[in-house]
Amino acid sequence: MSKPLAEFEEQAAIFENWFRKNHFPDRPEKLYMAAQHLLSLKGKRVRPVLCLMANELFTPVSEDAFYAAAAIEVFHNFTLVHDDIMDRAPIRRGSATVHELYGSSTAILAGDVMLVQAYQYLTKIDKELLPKVMANFNEAARMVCEGQQYDMDFESQEEVTLEEYEHMIELKTSVLLATSLRIGSVIGGAGLHNQEILYSFGKNIGLAFQIQDDYLDAFGDQSKFGKKHGGDILANKKTFLHIRALSVLKGADKAAYLELMKQEGEDKIAPVLKLYKECGVDQWAKDLKQKYFDAAMENLEEVAVVSSRKQPLIHLAEFLLERQK
Amino acid sequence: MSKPLAEFEEQAAIFENWFRKNHFPDRPEKLYMAAQHLLSLKGKRVRPVLCLMANELFTPVSEDAFYAAAAIEVFHNFTLVHDDIMDRAPIRRGSATVHELYGSSTAILAGDVMLVQAYQYLTKIDKELLPKVMANFNEAARMVCEGQQYDMDFESQEEVTLEEYEHMIELKTSVLLATSLRIGSVIGGAGLHNQEILYSFGKNIGLAFQIQDDYLDAFGDQSKFGKKHGGDILANKKTFLHIRALSVLKGADKAAYLELMKQEGEDKIAPVLKLYKECGVDQWAKDLKQKYFDAAMENLEEVAVVSSRKQPLIHLAEFLLERQK
Repeated sequence: MSKPLAEFEEQAAIFENWFRKNHFPDRPEKLYMAAQHLLSLKGKRVRPVLCLMANELFTPVSEDAFYAAAAIEVFHNFTLVHDDIMDRAPIRRGSATVHELYGSSTAILAGDVMLVQAYQYLTKIDKELLPKVMANFNEAARMVCEGQQYDMDFESQEEVTLEEYEHMIELKTSVLLATSLRIGSVIGGAGLHNQEILYSFGKNIGLAFQIQDDYLDAFGDQSKFGKKHGGDILANKKTFLHIRALSVLKGADKAAYLELMKQEGEDKIAPVLKLYKECGVDQWAKDLKQKYFDAAMENLEEVAVVSSRKQPLIHLAEFLLERQK
Repeated sequence: MSKPLAEFEEQAAIFENWFRKNHFPDRPEKLYMAAQHLLSLKGKRVRPVLCLMANELFTPVSEDAFYAAAAIEVFHNFTLVHDDIMDRAPIRRGSATVHELYGSSTAILAGDVMLVQAYQYLTKIDKELLPKVMANFNEAARMVCEGQQYDMDFESQEEVTLEEYEHMIELKTSVLLATSLRIGSVIGGAGLHNQEILYSFGKNIGLAFQIQDDYLDAFGDQSKFGKKHGGDILANKKTFLHIRALSVLKGADKAAYLELMKQEGEDKIAPVLKLYKECGVDQWAKDLKQKYFDAAMENLEEVAVVSSRKQPLIHLAEFLLERQK
């Protein structure tokens, strides 16, 4: 009997063991301390695990998949460093952000050198696979930047449609999850059809995850969620809930909601949550998340390998989307 | 008789013709207008020309060399976009800088997407050459970031030695010129020794060029140089001249110079220039530039191809370093 394929925790631990090191030279000290900072903090490593699992779905995990996984994780962390500068975010993974610790100029440069290091990991991949892997990686990298730009554009855009918002989330979040899977499957020797289905699986998981994130910020179990309700409402952020509310509310109700959202301070949170419930935004979000989760499961169903091999990916999706039985 | 190899102007025009296009998709509009901005402005295209010439030194220029040259030029422009944010520079190539036009957040993101596009051009290169070209490119990219970090570190460092300053200039400026040549030579099929000598040639040219730049800012022919004398002195910048002055001045003279440099306003320029001349800093800089120029010419001498093939590179070096007879 063959060994069962690695589950999330095991795969994450295997990756962490490989990844836990200094990824940069020693000098200039400030630059490389800044570049290493976020990589040394504990992360979930979802993207590298997706890459390794997608490889293992088809063939035993190869060294190439570790390099690709490392490239993706370093890239992801690079986007966080630069996004945090743009968003003026003070905290990330329980620590001060890179620009808070080292200043914006060094944080820009640290991000740049992280992106270069991501490509340096890719360069280690078998030269037969490299062009295909890089083309996938480049496309995803470009789309993540596009997503961040749309996110910023939306801040000053009065109305954002659900389609526009979903497209932004796809670019900013889903595409990198999807690409982690596709690159892993390419390295695992998957055929084109399997590559594409896994990509769709990742996109659907990403959308479901973001809907859940927006939902939990408003309605999550505070003791479990570990932060106060309504942070997005307080920050007047565009979320799935906000966009849905704007599309179902009409006339005076809509005007009242917009007026309410414009207020500063925590007092607005309770009435906004009440309003969301009154117009069914909470249930709508649950249903939409379920729709994307189901679509993801259908994608996985379609992948042409025996179903026992799919268990780790199913469990990971269930874990991420809190669907554990 | 074979066609003579292309000279600087011709090679630059050939490259420009290939490179003059929109390098990005249309949307999000703000992101890609910002990313395209600097690429559309007229540049000297020295690095791509070095890459093409280094290829042509050995074999006819291949399509791969154009992709590599494009990657290098887009990379170089990416560094300018991010450096200008860090340096709060208002003007670049006679136009407002990207962050002035589109805001810092979009400028950061535009730089990121330019770096990704540079790698996308590399991805087009023959897969046999790609790992070697990418390893060279990544190393240079990392070193350019290191150079920018040292440059920023030096601003708040009381004393910088000539060695430290030269090392910073090597990283920030010389390495990319050197790598342009090395990558071109790799694509041209050069042997390892020729690759290394061309790399040294590029490094020496880069150092000579920076010394000249610092010299001209202080002593250049204003009508020819097109800007006022002493911009570096006014900005209290560390330059080859400044570092040399600090190393030859002693005791009270040194203290007086440092005091003078601390002053704000244009009044300090004339006395600083006078002091530079009194302690021979101007002649020292000319000699140092000559030393690096001569070293570069010796490198080129050593490259194992018939000397007639080297003429375009010699003429380019003479043009850049104003050595035309």
